[in-house]
Formats: sequence, C-alpha cells, structure tokens
Amino acid sequence: MFEGKLRKLFTPHSVAVIGASENFEKLGYHVMKSLIKGGYKGAVYPVNPNSKTLWGKEAYSSVSNIKGQVDLAIIVVPTERVPKVLEECGKKQVNGAVIITAGYRETEKDEGKLLEDEIRRISERFEIPIIGPNTFGFVNITDCVNASFTYEFSLIKKGGVTLISQSGGFCHLIGFLAIEERVGMAKLMSLGNRVNIDFPEAVKYFLDEDRETRVIVLYIEGIDVPRRLFETIERAKNKKPIIAYKSGRNEKGDAASKFHTGSLAGNYRIWKGAFRQWGILEVQDSEDLIDTAKALDSCEPLMGSRIAVLSGQAGPGIIAADILEKEGLSLSKFSDQTQKKINEILPPLAIRTNPVDMGPAWHSPQRIISLLNVVSEDENTDGILFLNMFASANISLVSELEKTLRDNEPFKKPIIACLNAPSGVWDEEINKIDGEKGFCVIRTPERAARTMANLHRVSRMME
Amino acid sequence: MFEGKLRKLFTPHSVAVIGASENFEKLGYHVMKSLIKGGYKGAVYPVNPNSKTLWGKEAYSSVSNIKGQVDLAIIVVPTERVPKVLEECGKKQVNGAVIITAGYRETEKDEGKLLEDEIRRISERFEIPIIGPNTFGFVNITDCVNASFTYEFSLIKKGGVTLISQSGGFCHLIGFLAIEERVGMAKLMSLGNRVNIDFPEAVKYFLDEDRETRVIVLYIEGIDVPRRLFETIERAKNKKPIIAYKSGRNEKGDAASKFHTGSLAGNYRIWKGAFRQWGILEVQDSEDLIDTAKALDSCEPLMGSRIAVLSGQAGPGIIAADILEKEGLSLSKFSDQTQKKINEILPPLAIRTNPVDMGPAWHSPQRIISLLNVVSEDENTDGILFLNMFASANISLVSELEKTLRDNEPFKKPIIACLNAPSGVWDEEINKIDGEKGFCVIRTPERAARTMANLHRVSRMME
Repeated sequence: MFEGKLRKLFTPHSVAVIGASENFEKLGYHVMKSLIKGGYKGAVYPVNPNSKTLWGKEAYSSVSNIKGQVDLAIIVVPTERVPKVLEECGKKQVNGAVIITAGYRETEKDEGKLLEDEIRRISERFEIPIIGPNTFGFVNITDCVNASFTYEFSLIKKGGVTLISQSGGFCHLIGFLAIEERVGMAKLMSLGNRVNIDFPEAVKYFLDEDRETRVIVLYIEGIDVPRRLFETIERAKNKKPIIAYKSGRNEKGDAASKFHTGSLAGNYRIWKGAFRQWGILEVQDSEDLIDTAKALDSCEPLMGSRIAVLSGQAGPGIIAADILEKEGLSLSKFSDQTQKKINEILPPLAIRTNPVDMGPAWHSPQRIISLLNVVSEDENTDGILFLNMFASANISLVSELEKTLRDNEPFKKPIIACLNAPSGVWDEEINKIDGEKGFCVIRTPERAARTMANLHRVSRMME
Repeated sequence: MFEGKLRKLFTPHSVAVIGASENFEKLGYHVMKSLIKGGYKGAVYPVNPNSKTLWGKEAYSSVSNIKGQVDLAIIVVPTERVPKVLEECGKKQVNGAVIITAGYRETEKDEGKLLEDEIRRISERFEIPIIGPNTFGFVNITDCVNASFTYEFSLIKKGGVTLISQSGGFCHLIGFLAIEERVGMAKLMSLGNRVNIDFPEAVKYFLDEDRETRVIVLYIEGIDVPRRLFETIERAKNKKPIIAYKSGRNEKGDAASKFHTGSLAGNYRIWKGAFRQWGILEVQDSEDLIDTAKALDSCEPLMGSRIAVLSGQAGPGIIAADILEKEGLSLSKFSDQTQKKINEILPPLAIRTNPVDMGPAWHSPQRIISLLNVVSEDENTDGILFLNMFASANISLVSELEKTLRDNEPFKKPIIACLNAPSGVWDEEINKIDGEKGFCVIRTPERAARTMANLHRVSRMME
C-alpha cells in the first residue's frame, strides 16, 4: 500500500516536530528531547507558530515553510488541529506521520470519531502512512530515531527484537525490562488507533523489509479483522520467528480492551488456535516474552529436546531440571565419551551425570569452561543450561568466560545461562557476553529453563 | 532440644573462626570478611595455629586458648580435622557451631559417613547445636551476623523474611534477588547435612523465638522424616505464614536431589497434599517466592478476593486483570459512592470502571493519589493493584507518593504496585516506600497480580 514510504517513515532523513516546545509540561518538549538526546543524525525541523527558535534550531510556523524534504512528521498539536496540520503535511509531500495526539475513536464520542474519519480521508488522499493517532510513537533503535515522547527508550541496546504493540504502556514495560536485562531491540512501536497502519502493514514491513529485525513480538488486545494479519503472516511463513502476547483473555479484560482500543478482543480460544496454526509462539508473561525474544535473537535453533544442565550449585540445577521436564524437554544422557571426559574434569565427589553439579570445580573457571566445551560437543545434547550463582570463590568465572568467547569460535550448542550476582559484581563482563555467540543470560533458573523450552518450540515451528 | 542455645548460635556475642585465613583462596578468608565487613559488633577470634595475628586481631592456635566465652564457632578446617576441632569446641563449652567444611555423607563414601557419625556423636555428648556440615552457613541480617563465606548477603535490607534452605545455591539465588528487589530479610541459612539442626528445629526456633521473623520460607529438596516437620508446624499453626518451594518434583530432579543431600525427595504429590493440609503456601518459582514473601511481610492480610486495578496505562491493567481472574480473584465492583468520586477525578474520556485507566490523570500525581485514597476506602474492594509505567509526564509521581506515605496513615487496603522505570529514575523514592505502610512494589504487572493472589491464599489460610 505505501511502497517505499514505510522505510522512509521508520528511517527518515528529516523529521518535522509539529507542536515542538521548550516547555517541559508539553509532549512537544519530550518529543524534541527524544530525537535530539536520542542521537538522531538527520535534520530536525521544530514547527510552532509562536517561536522563532526552539532547541537551538530555527522554528517554522508551519510545515509548509520548511525548505527541504520532510520524511517524517511527528504531530503533537491539540486534537482538533490535527486534520489541518495533516493536510499541510500532505501538500508538503511528507512521507509519513506519527500522530501522538489522542482524543479520537477511543473516546467513543461522535466528535472524536468524526475527527478520526477526517484524518483517515486526508491520509488516503495524500497516501500518507500514519502511526497513530493516540500513540506514544515509535523508536528505531538501530538508527537512533526516537520518534516518541519517552527519551529513555534510547537506552535500549541495539539488537534484532522488534515489538509491535497495541498498547503504549506495554511498550514502556517491555522497553524498561529490555534495558535492565540487556535485550537487544531493533524497533518498537505502538499502533494506537491504526487509521492506516495496523498489524498486517507493520508485520509485513518488519518481515520483508527491515533487515535488522530478526524476531517479531506482537502485543495484541483485539483486532477487527484478524484474518488479514494471519494472511500476512502466512505469506511470509517461517521467515522470522513471531511471538505473540494476547491480553484480554478473560471476560473482564476483554471488556476493558474494547474501551481501550475500540476493538473487541474476541474469543481467546480462537486466538489460541490461530497462533498454533500460523506458527506463532504465544507467551503469557512479560518476562517470558523478553527472555524468549532475546534467546531467539542470540541463539541458533535447537536441533532437539535433549538438554544438559551444568550447575555450579546443585539446588538451582534441580530447580531447572524440574521446569525442563514440566515443559516437555528431556535431560540428555551423555555419550560414554562425554561422560568419560566429564569424569576426568570433576572428582567422584560430584554429581557427574545430568544435571551436573559443578560444585567441586567452582573455584576453577578453566575446569568449568572445559565442562561447557565437552558438553557442547556431546552428540546426545541439543542445548545447555548453565547456572552459576556468584560466590567469592568463583568471582573470576565470568571474566574468563568473556575471554573464551572473545577469542574463540562459539560453543557448538545454544547456551542459556543464569549468572546471578549482586549488582556491580559481574555486570561489566555479562554485558559483553550476553547475546553474543549463542550465549544468552537469563535472570533465574526457572526462566532460563522456560526460555530453553520456548527456543525448542520455535525451532520446531520454523523447521 | 537445645534450649536457649539456638538464640546464642544465631545472635552470638562472640565468634571463633576456626580455620581463619588472610589468603583469598581459602574459605577462612571469606568467612572473616563476611563477619568483619558485614558489620558484626561482637568479639571475633580467629583460630589458626600458623598465625599470630589475622585481620588485625590476635590469632589463637586452638579454640581452647581463647580466654572469653565463645557463643559460636565457625569451622572451615579440612574434612578430617573437623571432629577433633569440634571436640575442642565442646570442651570450651561453645554454644553452637557452623560447620562449612564438606566431604561427609553427601560423598556417599564410607569414610565420609564415618566422619559425619563422629561429628554427630561429639555434638550429642557436648549438646552442641550444629548448622551443617556442608553448608555456606547462615546470615542474621537483623543483627549483622554474617556467618557465611559470602559477604554480599550483608547487602540485603533488614526485614521479616527468613529463609531456611536445603541448598546453599538457592540461598545465593534468593539473596541476590532480594537485594535487587528490596526484599527485607531477617535470617537466611542453609541446613547442609543436618546432623542435629534439621527443618523442625529451625522452623520451631523461627516460629517461636525469633521475633524479627514474620514470614518463613522453606526450600525443600527431600527430608527423611517429613512428619516431624509437619508436627512442628501444626503446634504453631497460623502463628506466622509459611511458604514452601519443593524441588525435585519430577523423577530426574528427585534423583539429583538424592545425591545432593542424601535424602530421597519423595513423591511430590504427597508433599503437595501435606502443604495444603498444614496451611503452607506452595510456590514453584523463585521470583514468585520473593514477591509473595515481601508482600506477606509488608501488607496486612487481604480480607476478601475483590481487587481494584488502577493503571496509569490501559495495557498493563488489562494484563493484570487477566492474571487476577486466572488466579481466582475478582475485579471489585465499586460502590456508587466510590464510582461517583472516581468520576469527579477522571474525565469521561477514561475507563473509570475497574480496571481503571488513570491515563488522563497521569501528569497529575495529586489526582492519582486521590484515586488511590478513594478506592482504598471503597467497601467493595479488598486490595489494590496500582500499575504505573514511567513516562516523562509522570516523573514526579513516586516522590509525591513518598511524601504522602511519609506524612499520613497508610492507605486502608493493601496496595501492590508495579512502578517500572529505567534504572536511576525512581529508585531512590521507591527504596523509601517499598515495603512501608502496606505498600509493596513488584516488578511486573503479572507478578504483582500473582502476588495479590498469594496474599489472598495465605490470608485465608491464616484466618
């Protein structure tokens, strides 16, 4: 529908902020801050008829007065003024718009609906792709384009996870969790009222055209015509893994999401079946979501369901084994050759069968890394859960791991690790290895095990 | 069994570290560091025949040479030397011992078993309560007694949660999560091989004698005589809430835990039934565990199952409502009076019924706090989930909340909050309000909702 225009919208060479401001109380302030402090490299044109300069830049009374081409217009003027401003954008031939302003269909008032209809008509006439209205915007982490009112999204690490959300609040939740847990993201966006960019358009773009996106995450409350989304996904089947979080699974939540985005959330069981049919992994928890997305972005697919648990302390290993079995994975039975090598590294004192208790080796990073190497070469093992709680005696473990990963080929199997330590102890080294070379760090043994199970599910779907 | 001695063991006026060292490679180094850097106020006697002074203190060649009374001996000498050292402790009339040294029953070797039998006989002869052998020790957070080889436990905030664990690794996991998530703890300990302090003895002490302990958490792999534990719990029924995490729930994990602690984990279904019968809340996830313990320590019981969801952004509110319904709680239906007051605070634009979308009020902390007040007085509401993702416009929300809680009586209902923000933004204010005056902060909307459900379950059990 918007051939070529979406790329310019998401990676603009120039941005006009219509409603730009230097007043902290205004969203136009925060949008300017996000762009500038977020490191945007292109031209920024603040538009505000009441100012000559804003943020040290020449301000324009209207988008029409800007001399150069405008790839993206971010609109934060009051509700009633948006149609007029959008028409000016059309005449100026802007390539796309983000309308942050709210007060339309979601108000369930005639006035709001009429204004939204007007916006839609103008966008059709000028063929302007629009994100919103009633959105926080989008953030292109890859290219440092923070087109939102929340600068802090720019703190997210660059990576391959793209979130397409029906809720701005959910984007904020996931964005902040991503910062804390080092999830690398490519783009995140909230669709808002979806006048002409809805899930199908966005999913198609990120599946087909956005190279940096390697994993797509959908947060869905309700869609009027779900079939269109599923047709889009089918056309691109198995190109990139897709994870979905469907909220409004119960009656009350359903009713709330109807108000929120003006769509019926619909019968959850139908959604569940559709996800299964179209090879979409469903998650029901925001932490499972970020964990799974991170693992899919950083690990090779899992070739089978046989998992080795290597644990620096027996307890967390037992915990992880419980979850693996509950999730339908199995504990691998090492080949005789592997077992022999393990027995050479660990004393008889230790549990040397799976789940392996590496306890007696914990003061020796070299022996622990040898165990990782040996098990990653085991023919009966498809993936490794590697669990180590910090204790003074193993303090150098993560820096040694970092050196190993820096200087060598990756281990031969996906490794999902849990490396708990008080803040500040291992952070620097974990930052360097997390998400690199098939090594992914997850916060608890249970979440690590569930992530392994999800990696396995998606690997099977993508086969 | 050890009348009065356990109190001296856990709150000693003097500690001998037998095997103390200044060599970082030795556990005796880390035990000394934990005590001294952990802020222990009593007398510390390093014992090591090869040194005159250690850590700036006079060192003793044997515990017998110490002039004053020794309340607690921490033993970190090699496996074979422990019986002799323990006998010296007996003669010196120490009140209790922590034996960190490993290499006994858990090795499944005759030699180890014989040595452990000897330790048991000596402890019986001199009536010395022993934590261990094969333990990381214990930490009394309340009184700054870090009798373990991990100094970092001393970074845990003081509070009412006590963990009695069958795994040192699990203590490290929970301890580090507690630091990150501001869970206030009283004590944590790993029982090790349990020569004479097993779950019943520890549970009895913390239920009956330790005033600072308000919530007891058990991590259980397997116990030889579970009946003794349940009898202890029955005698003290409903005195303090008890949470249990049972691992080794499946066959493989069970086998591993047998090796780890020398006990059969036993049939999980029997455990599950016993937990229900004795009013113990079972959890199966370490994050659910810390969340629930924190809420039980900081909130009043929930009088019913009717929950109000107040959310700054609709999406997270819908997510939380999904979980509440799944967990068997209900969304409260506000009284007419409450609804009227809410309608005065929020514009018609917003969803003003439960789950309430406070979106239009998000730039006004006063209106959000008014909503909290109004709903906490609603006769149809038993607890409140309060969800706010950070965005620039609501940056002052948490400092205003902090002022409100500082200057006023608590809100009239337990409030479980989710206040996500990038690191550094709200941390300082959250530190001040989290766990205070019935206000408890949990990391995600889903976990907050599950915590509310657990608070409800325990409140019903304790009735």
